[in-house]
Amino acid sequence: MRLSSFFMPTLKESPADAQIVSHKLMLRAGMIRQTSAGIYAWLPLGWRVLQKIEQIVREEQDAAGAQEILMPTIQSADLWRESGRYDDYGKEMLRITDRHDRDMLYGPTNEEMVTDIFRGFVRSYRQLPLNLYHIQWKFRDEIRPRFGVMRGREFLMKDAYSFDIDAAGARRSYQTMFLAYLRTFARMGLKAIPMRADTGPIGGDLSHEFIILAETGESGVFCHRDWMNLDVLADAPGYGDDLQAFFDKCTGIYAATDEKHVPGESPVPEDQLVSARGIEVGHIFYFGTKYSKPMNAVVAGPDGNPVLAEMGSYGIGVSRLAGAIIEASHDDHGIIWPDSVAPFNVGLVNLKPGDSQTDTVCQDLYHKLRAAGLDVLYDDRDERPGVKFADMDLIGLPWQLVVGPRGLKNGTVELKRRATGQKEEVSEEFALTRLIGG
Amino acid sequence: MRLSSFFMPTLKESPADAQIVSHKLMLRAGMIRQTSAGIYAWLPLGWRVLQKIEQIVREEQDAAGAQEILMPTIQSADLWRESGRYDDYGKEMLRITDRHDRDMLYGPTNEEMVTDIFRGFVRSYRQLPLNLYHIQWKFRDEIRPRFGVMRGREFLMKDAYSFDIDAAGARRSYQTMFLAYLRTFARMGLKAIPMRADTGPIGGDLSHEFIILAETGESGVFCHRDWMNLDVLADAPGYGDDLQAFFDKCTGIYAATDEKHVPGESPVPEDQLVSARGIEVGHIFYFGTKYSKPMNAVVAGPDGNPVLAEMGSYGIGVSRLAGAIIEASHDDHGIIWPDSVAPFNVGLVNLKPGDSQTDTVCQDLYHKLRAAGLDVLYDDRDERPGVKFADMDLIGLPWQLVVGPRGLKNGTVELKRRATGQKEEVSEEFALTRLIGG
Repeated sequence: MRLSSFFMPTLKESPADAQIVSHKLMLRAGMIRQTSAGIYAWLPLGWRVLQKIEQIVREEQDAAGAQEILMPTIQSADLWRESGRYDDYGKEMLRITDRHDRDMLYGPTNEEMVTDIFRGFVRSYRQLPLNLYHIQWKFRDEIRPRFGVMRGREFLMKDAYSFDIDAAGARRSYQTMFLAYLRTFARMGLKAIPMRADTGPIGGDLSHEFIILAETGESGVFCHRDWMNLDVLADAPGYGDDLQAFFDKCTGIYAATDEKHVPGESPVPEDQLVSARGIEVGHIFYFGTKYSKPMNAVVAGPDGNPVLAEMGSYGIGVSRLAGAIIEASHDDHGIIWPDSVAPFNVGLVNLKPGDSQTDTVCQDLYHKLRAAGLDVLYDDRDERPGVKFADMDLIGLPWQLVVGPRGLKNGTVELKRRATGQKEEVSEEFALTRLIGG
Repeated sequence: MRLSSFFMPTLKESPADAQIVSHKLMLRAGMIRQTSAGIYAWLPLGWRVLQKIEQIVREEQDAAGAQEILMPTIQSADLWRESGRYDDYGKEMLRITDRHDRDMLYGPTNEEMVTDIFRGFVRSYRQLPLNLYHIQWKFRDEIRPRFGVMRGREFLMKDAYSFDIDAAGARRSYQTMFLAYLRTFARMGLKAIPMRADTGPIGGDLSHEFIILAETGESGVFCHRDWMNLDVLADAPGYGDDLQAFFDKCTGIYAATDEKHVPGESPVPEDQLVSARGIEVGHIFYFGTKYSKPMNAVVAGPDGNPVLAEMGSYGIGVSRLAGAIIEASHDDHGIIWPDSVAPFNVGLVNLKPGDSQTDTVCQDLYHKLRAAGLDVLYDDRDERPGVKFADMDLIGLPWQLVVGPRGLKNGTVELKRRATGQKEEVSEEFALTRLIGG
């Protein structure tokens, strides 16, 4: 993509109303634009990141055996009356009346709808286990939306729902999603710590939040300092394996949100307890028959008798992750995207558009990098080098490849790794090998 | 994907409330489930098709130079008051009041919002032309939703918006989308005829609908019989070329929707005029300054003076296309998916699960086909052959590969092309070569 025709409206100054660094940087990099309080349009750069995040989430859900569907955003209130949550949910639920005066709502979550789909089709325990997920926009009418996409009103969530014939099966499903979440966040360069958590309006008695430590986090969290240097995935089992030992190991190291942490009663000695702020990026629940019972979601068991489905649900804040990754990975100059979610792999900077040698070399690099399957943002704009460097650092692509007449006289281009700031004067060929090779 | 664990709830009987064949077949094939009047959940098989359609649309928009963004579903009423459409739109607009008593709405289209984004960032004619598109769920509160996803209330639409400095530029943008639409529908195996059309609530004075001829179509249409055997793309130019001659050629052959067709006044002799029913799958508009004027979307022109942006908008009914393709491609046994949008490339039918040789050959084929990048649905269920054949025909995968003990005795498997019904007894190797080779 040529930057001269790419719609990426960067801002020099931080907008006054943005309080946290990810919100500031997303606005400055031209990733998003607020269209109403807590509601955002994703501009091309932001949309590319959101798609990358979504795809990682999807791949791990698929690998874990969940099946993708898509449920609609608008739901009938009747379903929520069946579960009893229609009155419980309060003002965060966006309630809507259609032209025929039917009570509808914009889904904040989908336990009721997926249970209705399940009971409509699934008849036998032989069709279990079943895990259905979708990646769909949700709406929660927050009283004070803030922090950009981190706490917006319209937000993209992946929510999965597992159905099992008994509690043992449901525990396996829970453990499988537990592993999938650790893998998902790790692939995005995030260290997410699973913490015992409250179940809130979803219900149930077993629940973990996946929390990224960050100063700007909304939740207070507590964990054993062993979590700081632990790579729990180092010897993780595969999805098909027995996961109990892995699950026990992960949950055996203390970590809890402040609702669950009782000062003085944690098993961790004070000098080994880390108290920090965290951002919730995922939340998983095992709630048994909380929905299957009132909604009568039963299947025939092995003996032919009806059995209520044992259920769990599993959420990832897909749009929130765009902000959370920035909170975890930035510096004074801007965003530092992990390779896996970067909107482009390489930023190619032409220091002197119009100079025929520089143009020729840039064109050549552009075509070769793209031919190798890399996404390249080619800054061919008629701007000063300082502007170009500042924009490249701001938008945080993993690699910058800088081409100018001075370097070309010596046969070199400059290759810069955004994360470390390390620069190398190298030949065109070396740069290509480095970028394409890995 | 193994069918024994794939969530594909097929139905033997046609649901009574489905009137047209695509709706019946989508329900019977377990592609969708109605969750409220005119609102559907996409089950795994349907979701796969919808994603394929979406990806073709995306690729052609990108190739045509449009840039993808994502605007939210919930919009502020204030934007629509600026354009004057808030009161005009009537009861099809789903109006919502949020917890702070602000008037909101579920977007039925996005002219206002994209114009607001444009005026927020674009300052100079040098940033034009610009075409921004998104693929997002829309809501139109139809008084009588019907025909399944063909006329639902919540539906997926691709809508693009072009901005140019003058009418000549806007015409080029219009022609570019015109070509992109022809290519898009052709890639899905559809013959879509561009017809002069009314502009309705979008406005403007130049507009084409892209119509697929089908008996169940909602619109009456008229066209010259030359359209019947014409491949307009046979000598089509590329996106970067001058498109005027191509556009003139396409629009020079008579085709009009019934709102635009005046009986007795068309230039086509009666015996060469085809009168038919059609399904609208795309609609493009050139409306000049209809939105930029009231919303003051101006840029500095070459002389520094402010110029109103010349705009057009371009819609494709993405979810509707799933139904339209079925209307155009089915037989008495079920759906016949074109290869480009098929949910799987191959259906592999094991006629005798449990028979060790049959199982081994199926496993081998399954792994080899998948290793070659094909999507395979492996029917490993413990069901009668008749059930398996019926389901395979119903869901309409392009190829069926049938493996049973009887054939294996002779060293053969059966390869069936769904579209023609042609069956061949071939060796495993031949089947693999045929499927992987093309």
